[in-house]
Amino acid sequence: MIVDCAAYEAGRRREGELSLGRAGEAAREKGTFVWLGVVEPSDTEFNDVAAEFGLHELAVEDAVRAHQRPKLEEYGDTLHVVVKTARYVDPKEVIEIGEISIFVAPGSVITVRHGHADLAPVRERLEQRPDLLANGPGAVLYGIVDHVVDRYMEAAHGFDNDVREVELQVFGEGRNPTERIYKLEREVLEFQAATAPLGEALEELCAHNYPVVPEALHEYFRDVEDHLARVTTRIENFRQLLDSALEANLTQVSMRQNEDMRKISAWVAIAAAPTMVAGIYGMNFEHMPELEWTLGYPTVLAITLAICLFLYWRFKRAGWL
Amino acid sequence: MIVDCAAYEAGRRREGELSLGRAGEAAREKGTFVWLGVVEPSDTEFNDVAAEFGLHELAVEDAVRAHQRPKLEEYGDTLHVVVKTARYVDPKEVIEIGEISIFVAPGSVITVRHGHADLAPVRERLEQRPDLLANGPGAVLYGIVDHVVDRYMEAAHGFDNDVREVELQVFGEGRNPTERIYKLEREVLEFQAATAPLGEALEELCAHNYPVVPEALHEYFRDVEDHLARVTTRIENFRQLLDSALEANLTQVSMRQNEDMRKISAWVAIAAAPTMVAGIYGMNFEHMPELEWTLGYPTVLAITLAICLFLYWRFKRAGWL
Amino acid sequence: MIVDCAAYEAGRRREGELSLGRAGEAAREKGTFVWLGVVEPSDTEFNDVAAEFGLHELAVEDAVRAHQRPKLEEYGDTLHVVVKTARYVDPKEVIEIGEISIFVAPGSVITVRHGHADLAPVRERLEQRPDLLANGPGAVLYGIVDHVVDRYMEAAHGFDNDVREVELQVFGEGRNPTERIYKLEREVLEFQAATAPLGEALEELCAHNYPVVPEALHEYFRDVEDHLARVTTRIENFRQLLDSALEANLTQVSMRQNEDMRKISAWVAIAAAPTMVAGIYGMNFEHMPELEWTLGYPTVLAITLAICLFLYWRFKRAGWL
Amino acid sequence: MIVDCAAYEAGRRREGELSLGRAGEAAREKGTFVWLGVVEPSDTEFNDVAAEFGLHELAVEDAVRAHQRPKLEEYGDTLHVVVKTARYVDPKEVIEIGEISIFVAPGSVITVRHGHADLAPVRERLEQRPDLLANGPGAVLYGIVDHVVDRYMEAAHGFDNDVREVELQVFGEGRNPTERIYKLEREVLEFQAATAPLGEALEELCAHNYPVVPEALHEYFRDVEDHLARVTTRIENFRQLLDSALEANLTQVSMRQNEDMRKISAWVAIAAAPTMVAGIYGMNFEHMPELEWTLGYPTVLAITLAICLFLYWRFKRAGWL
Amino acid sequence: MIVDCAAYEAGRRREGELSLGRAGEAAREKGTFVWLGVVEPSDTEFNDVAAEFGLHELAVEDAVRAHQRPKLEEYGDTLHVVVKTARYVDPKEVIEIGEISIFVAPGSVITVRHGHADLAPVRERLEQRPDLLANGPGAVLYGIVDHVVDRYMEAAHGFDNDVREVELQVFGEGRNPTERIYKLEREVLEFQAATAPLGEALEELCAHNYPVVPEALHEYFRDVEDHLARVTTRIENFRQLLDSALEANLTQVSMRQNEDMRKISAWVAIAAAPTMVAGIYGMNFEHMPELEWTLGYPTVLAITLAICLFLYWRFKRAGWL
Repeated sequence: MIVDCAAYEAGRRREGELSLGRAGEAAREKGTFVWLGVVEPSDTEFNDVAAEFGLHELAVEDAVRAHQRPKLEEYGDTLHVVVKTARYVDPKEVIEIGEISIFVAPGSVITVRHGHADLAPVRERLEQRPDLLANGPGAVLYGIVDHVVDRYMEAAHGFDNDVREVELQVFGEGRNPTERIYKLEREVLEFQAATAPLGEALEELCAHNYPVVPEALHEYFRDVEDHLARVTTRIENFRQLLDSALEANLTQVSMRQNEDMRKISAWVAIAAAPTMVAGIYGMNFEHMPELEWTLGYPTVLAITLAICLFLYWRFKRAGWL
Repeated sequence: MIVDCAAYEAGRRREGELSLGRAGEAAREKGTFVWLGVVEPSDTEFNDVAAEFGLHELAVEDAVRAHQRPKLEEYGDTLHVVVKTARYVDPKEVIEIGEISIFVAPGSVITVRHGHADLAPVRERLEQRPDLLANGPGAVLYGIVDHVVDRYMEAAHGFDNDVREVELQVFGEGRNPTERIYKLEREVLEFQAATAPLGEALEELCAHNYPVVPEALHEYFRDVEDHLARVTTRIENFRQLLDSALEANLTQVSMRQNEDMRKISAWVAIAAAPTMVAGIYGMNFEHMPELEWTLGYPTVLAITLAICLFLYWRFKRAGWL
Repeated sequence: MIVDCAAYEAGRRREGELSLGRAGEAAREKGTFVWLGVVEPSDTEFNDVAAEFGLHELAVEDAVRAHQRPKLEEYGDTLHVVVKTARYVDPKEVIEIGEISIFVAPGSVITVRHGHADLAPVRERLEQRPDLLANGPGAVLYGIVDHVVDRYMEAAHGFDNDVREVELQVFGEGRNPTERIYKLEREVLEFQAATAPLGEALEELCAHNYPVVPEALHEYFRDVEDHLARVTTRIENFRQLLDSALEANLTQVSMRQNEDMRKISAWVAIAAAPTMVAGIYGMNFEHMPELEWTLGYPTVLAITLAICLFLYWRFKRAGWL
Repeated sequence: MIVDCAAYEAGRRREGELSLGRAGEAAREKGTFVWLGVVEPSDTEFNDVAAEFGLHELAVEDAVRAHQRPKLEEYGDTLHVVVKTARYVDPKEVIEIGEISIFVAPGSVITVRHGHADLAPVRERLEQRPDLLANGPGAVLYGIVDHVVDRYMEAAHGFDNDVREVELQVFGEGRNPTERIYKLEREVLEFQAATAPLGEALEELCAHNYPVVPEALHEYFRDVEDHLARVTTRIENFRQLLDSALEANLTQVSMRQNEDMRKISAWVAIAAAPTMVAGIYGMNFEHMPELEWTLGYPTVLAITLAICLFLYWRFKRAGWL
Repeated sequence: MIVDCAAYEAGRRREGELSLGRAGEAAREKGTFVWLGVVEPSDTEFNDVAAEFGLHELAVEDAVRAHQRPKLEEYGDTLHVVVKTARYVDPKEVIEIGEISIFVAPGSVITVRHGHADLAPVRERLEQRPDLLANGPGAVLYGIVDHVVDRYMEAAHGFDNDVREVELQVFGEGRNPTERIYKLEREVLEFQAATAPLGEALEELCAHNYPVVPEALHEYFRDVEDHLARVTTRIENFRQLLDSALEANLTQVSMRQNEDMRKISAWVAIAAAPTMVAGIYGMNFEHMPELEWTLGYPTVLAITLAICLFLYWRFKRAGWL
């Protein structure tokens, strides 16, 4: 489904939406480029686009089917860039991965998006920067990639919160956080797989002199690469923190088990005292002088109680109770 | 055993099966190439093929004996590519590794397969794409490698299911999943060993200008390389997830042990109360007024029961029962 | 906020503070350079500076917003270097990360700092070394980076103390150090993220022949690079030590649990003896000769006590008590 | 000790053993090369050889003292290759490492071996391949390295068996396999240290154009390199499997501890029932009607037994017994 | 403090000690070089040396302050090499790290040492090899580095012994080796930090054509590099073994805990039998025929004893006792 299709001349949007055919014509005009936005296209829909703009069979297949890795590929003078979008859904503690395929040719940019990514704000922001857009289709690529990496930062921020919550769970009282740690680890791995390969693609964008990426844009792409590197380092740190949290959690579980064991044992010891005393005076010897004393019973009860209190105090002082 | 042998001209299959001698001749014709499919050949069978097509002694040994690593080797103008096929047998949770040796020479492709791999669908699919086959023997290589890597994706999908099942076992009730996690880890390592080195071979295929791989095919091989990279990342993630699952599982085992210990201790404490009370009134003091009361016995029984119920309620509230 | 702005000629500071406009002029004089120090500037404040000195839009954004990675970027003949400052706050066991953005152009150095870093001592020390300052703006860059890396060494030293304290906690008696180990690990990861990427930037400074870094300074930067490498190795070692400490701690917890269990069991065994003996003589058989002996009761008490003492001695010898 | 010394001409062995002096002469003849096999030579023995063939002082020291890493070094036109031999001694589960130093000069091969390695089969096999030996001393180097790497495969196979046995021990009943896992890990590390560096040496053999390794042999060395890579991957996998086995084993130990604890607790609970009942009827109240019933005793015994059986059935059903 | 200062001509030591001024003169003579040995010099002492020999300010600072990483730096035609010396102090199980700074200029070698390293044996050994010393100051560098790396081998040997002792502790009876393992791990990390970077420096020494390192010495340095690689591999293996030992130790602790628990439980069960029997015959029923039997008491005692012995035998057979 085509969602927006416009021609840009000298960095400014020409009035009106273009049909697919008119778009193809405009793309061939000098000094003009077309930005065609497509959302989750069907095979037939996209085949029309591909025919009009001469896209390579394999790139088309990748763009329609999605589930690609982030990458940069060169088909003649067309660049095919795939980026993954990421959104952290906090209540579910799940990372949602989307995908944008971008075809950058000298006279056109075609963006194919899958999943939650929304490119309308990118288009808006870029249209307010004619100086940037004047650099041609490469500027659109920059705008999208910059936007996507900014979203990564936000997603990483969401993770950060949850990792800190998990830490509180590990070291505070409360329910067992093992499953939560594991689930976060799974999401972090997915996030990492979605973001890390983009770095290589961005590096190539600056290193090679692709005709659609004029040198004036190199600094912009380097800036994005840098932001990406920050995200990647943070994600890697999340993984290591979660690994350590898992192990720290195991230690805490063992600690708590030991504390419970001590508490239980202390009570068993306290209960053992009266049982033992009662056992002694339950013996049937004929000559047990205490049994005949008038105050024998209350005395023994009092002594037993004293022993129990003494034990309680000892265990309290030793930190077992 | 030769299973299929045909000549291709301008991307189309020539009518009829060829004998080995006729195949050699056809391979030497200009604009034609022969595709010879062999399955688990004996030494003597394959020596005939090697003699007819002039294959290198070492490559022949590798192809017949199998158990090679995925690799790409150049013997004169012949490329020898070894790929491992993978199939995930779900009921047994085992990865089955097969092997295909492919000799790509200017006028011929010889495929030697071991294990479960079936190349008939590849041949069929390629014969419907004369435009691709017109690129010569390299196109057959592409067809096979593409097919093999697609199978990897399926195998990875099978793993994914089992890893998720294992997670449910770790965090749910049920039998101890330790052995299952370990076995999956073993299979993942085998899968990884079978797939990872192929990446290097594919990279070389694009980087060098082998005469049998015309430039028009480079983009196809890069596409396969890309799919392979996705599989490899997933496999690596499986390993890390299984590692974490093993550790999470240990924590769960400790947690459950602690819960059991608390439950047991609670019952021991509840049982200790009547024993203690009974002990006291089992003492043989002559002056124990309660013993003479008419309602002494039922009263004591009631009090004991009350203590037990109170303890039960306390342990219930503390989550020990 | 501009905190210090002065012109330097032949390595010596010219008298008096400069206004922003005069600074721009001085920067264009031959043989002179301006050092402009800015602290946490607002957007508008820094836009004036950027306009006067012709800084690149992206670098300006990075400098004002901070939260960058350490990096080296070249915008025309201007170098933009970002370094992170680190300070270890011992009572809280937290690493405090600040940031300094340095723009080095042929006639000017602009330093933008965020957080706790104080550049006054650097300026002072450099002004006592006219021979160094005579190398131009690059010498200021060296002065700052050298100072920052020296602070890293101090921070690493602070960590070292705490790691050693944690070790004493793990292997001595005392409270559970799990949380402390984990927290230190978190800080180490942050420290590492702040310092490690600087190495690459320093390497580039020596490898490329940037016009603002004359060759005479290369040895100085290599020296800093070397000091940085020492810090990075130490930080990496902290991580590995803390990892091991976490595991050693788990073992110690298990050990202590086992010791407690043995101690508890020993006391239970000692208490079981009188209970068992008392049970036997509490039986109601008509023919139990011991019950009728005059000294039956004290004898049995004495024997029971002897059994208890014997058990106590046995457990003591076995190291259970 | 010289064990075999022969001259080879056009790939065929010349009749008769050579003395050391005659060997030196033969080495200087054109189209001929000498293969001198030495076993654990003393300093003086080998100094004679070194003088005759002009070996470098350092290489001589390495060859006599052994305990080198696998390596390839070039002294003038002489290559010095060190390979480690490996043999897995199954009953002791120990890897036995030997060493072969090979000096390959244009007219001679000198092999110095330490430890269990036997080169007689290599010599025999090579003498049956005059076509290979016609490539000169490099062919002997190939023969030895190929043989050594084949032995690695066998050693890896022996490991594989023991790793599988250990797995059975971990997941089956039986004695504690911790020590065995650890010992295997130690051997695997030693095996890895002995084999991994050889890869680099083999790579260099193909990459450089050493005069003693004619191009025709490159494919042979690449084949060996490939076999080595398979072994190295397997060894690496062993390490990871043993790591996982160690952790799985810990989990199994915890599981078994939990099972034991449940079993013990169940029996304690079953035994607590009669004790409690007996305690109640051991009380000395004057008004306990049950005590006077004629069938009181058997009834209570029967009830107690019923309670025990009920508890047994409950624990059985819950899987605690 | 200058400890030895002599001039060498054609590989032979000239008679007599030189004053600092005379040393500077001798260094400027052709065909002669001066070896000046300094031990832990004060700032002023070393400033005289630096002035006489024209050493770079930064190198001087490094040499006096010590605590550098191993490194190789080039200041004009002077090489500055820093190596760490290592000595394993067995009784304390501690690695002692020292440092040697070596300045190699065309006419002089200045060695500055800190810590325990003793260079006298190196000087002696070198003076017996005029052929080596004839290569100039580079030969002295070789002599020192070779000596230092040989000491590493000895230190690694010391570690090896302790690692093996620790293994015996882990798998045998005895005190808890956790702390010892951890401490060894700490020392291994320090050893690794001291040795690993030297490899890079040695590689550069061979790769670059430094004028003070004539090509004839390259093979010598490569030999040292190789020995270093062996040490580094061993150290890395120690780390991995200690990691595994830590985990194996945890498993052993758990195993022992389980064994203790079983033993304790077995004794508790054995003690529960007489208590239960005594409880039954302690009940006060009027109609308990056994109580009136003449042989009731001894019979019951005998039966109880039999039960206890039976339980003991069962537990013995099950391996719990």
